[in-house]
Amino acid sequence: METTSGGGTLVLGGARSGKSSYALELGRRALGPMGRGLFIATARPVDGEMALRIEAHRRERGGEWETLEEPLEVARALLHLPPWARAVVVDCVTLWLSNLMEMGAGEAEILRRARELGEAAASAPVPVILVANEVGMGVVPAHPVARGFRDLAGRVNQLLAAALPTVVLVVAGLPMVLKGEAS
Amino acid sequence: METTSGGGTLVLGGARSGKSSYALELGRRALGPMGRGLFIATARPVDGEMALRIEAHRRERGGEWETLEEPLEVARALLHLPPWARAVVVDCVTLWLSNLMEMGAGEAEILRRARELGEAAASAPVPVILVANEVGMGVVPAHPVARGFRDLAGRVNQLLAAALPTVVLVVAGLPMVLKGEAS
Amino acid sequence: METTSGGGTLVLGGARSGKSSYALELGRRALGPMGRGLFIATARPVDGEMALRIEAHRRERGGEWETLEEPLEVARALLHLPPWARAVVVDCVTLWLSNLMEMGAGEAEILRRARELGEAAASAPVPVILVANEVGMGVVPAHPVARGFRDLAGRVNQLLAAALPTVVLVVAGLPMVLKGEAS
Repeated sequence: METTSGGGTLVLGGARSGKSSYALELGRRALGPMGRGLFIATARPVDGEMALRIEAHRRERGGEWETLEEPLEVARALLHLPPWARAVVVDCVTLWLSNLMEMGAGEAEILRRARELGEAAASAPVPVILVANEVGMGVVPAHPVARGFRDLAGRVNQLLAAALPTVVLVVAGLPMVLKGEAS
Repeated sequence: METTSGGGTLVLGGARSGKSSYALELGRRALGPMGRGLFIATARPVDGEMALRIEAHRRERGGEWETLEEPLEVARALLHLPPWARAVVVDCVTLWLSNLMEMGAGEAEILRRARELGEAAASAPVPVILVANEVGMGVVPAHPVARGFRDLAGRVNQLLAAALPTVVLVVAGLPMVLKGEAS
Repeated sequence: METTSGGGTLVLGGARSGKSSYALELGRRALGPMGRGLFIATARPVDGEMALRIEAHRRERGGEWETLEEPLEVARALLHLPPWARAVVVDCVTLWLSNLMEMGAGEAEILRRARELGEAAASAPVPVILVANEVGMGVVPAHPVARGFRDLAGRVNQLLAAALPTVVLVVAGLPMVLKGEAS
């Protein structure tokens, strides 16, 4: 009998770093040849072009991934996983943060939810892979809202990196293991 | 008899990467259970909110750290350390650079001062930990002043990384050793 | 008889990270004491100040490097290397991308050209070192053109990183090997 082990992974990377592809690759290894996975998409189809892109991404992932669109309640989704899911990819944490800020969530609530997300990912019965953007290595943004977003994104990444056993930084499609062991 | 060894460390990281916490953790290891350290803060309390934040940070660091506010003459402070200081944290080099630019210092003076800072940190009798921002991994800033700042910050980081025996990049609170050995 | 081996290297880094100096250092090791190298400069002297900077860089590199100014047809230059060239440095891929975008090249053409560049660099008879900027680790740029540039730069970096046997990320002048072996 095949067993699946939990233990979450945080996959960090810049824009177009290949972090999502790497996360799916990690997820596929966890699925094995016949398993099905849950892909939790946090993007919201705000317009028609966005909806087309989301649909194209869904087709690219292939039939072994079932997509759940969940812009806000990601931790709750991880606590109520469907029994068939052998691995979970959440893409991505930084859009989830952006959605929370747009809903008017304050700093305290966001950090509380980030801790809940980290705990839910670390204690899930199957591997959970969280994708997040690294956004703090440019110059200070001129606009205060962008600065606030950047600061919260960095704090959320720290909380998740502390909560999960494995953390990987992807640069140009190549993984650097920051914590734990490469799988 | 306990001995302290010098040898500086440069701790690089993006915004909210956890670089300051990591630098203090390195510093605390150098202090040992009874030692006192010097924390050189380069931030200037330009307004009341900033002053409150600086005071909150000071309380968070705890009683073993004595704070010296020194926005400009950091190298001189390292050359005249109080005899009780068992370790020094400078937080941060990038604000110091920003202060120099606001004072009208030109490129040549800034690079000369960066070399002096690197030499002072490397030759200090106790461990000196310099915190600096990585700011060059975003798109080219639209504003020329921001571009100039980014370029000088990168050059200062290179000079300090060459001068010090240990360099660490912190991402999401996790250290990657770029030079020397992790302590 | 001395032999030269090919096998390209991608040197990634932020602004003023020391990536160009590191690429030249790699190139010099490949040249050996008497060899000559080809330096392919993609910058275009759009004004007098730029022309002065380009000329200053040329003098700094020293006599063993012959400079070829080639803003667009870099892959073709790699396919027609002069017989005396023992190593090639291309500085930089990100300016080349910027030049292509200014010429009106679309996404499909740029990605096709990036694949050609990767193949030409990987199959050249002498070591080819490509320098590229990491631009995706800041906040999302406000301007759509900057976002498009950042996204393409990231995808080009991924394509080149996949095509070449060695990839290095330079931070504050210090190399981190992401793929292959440090030379």
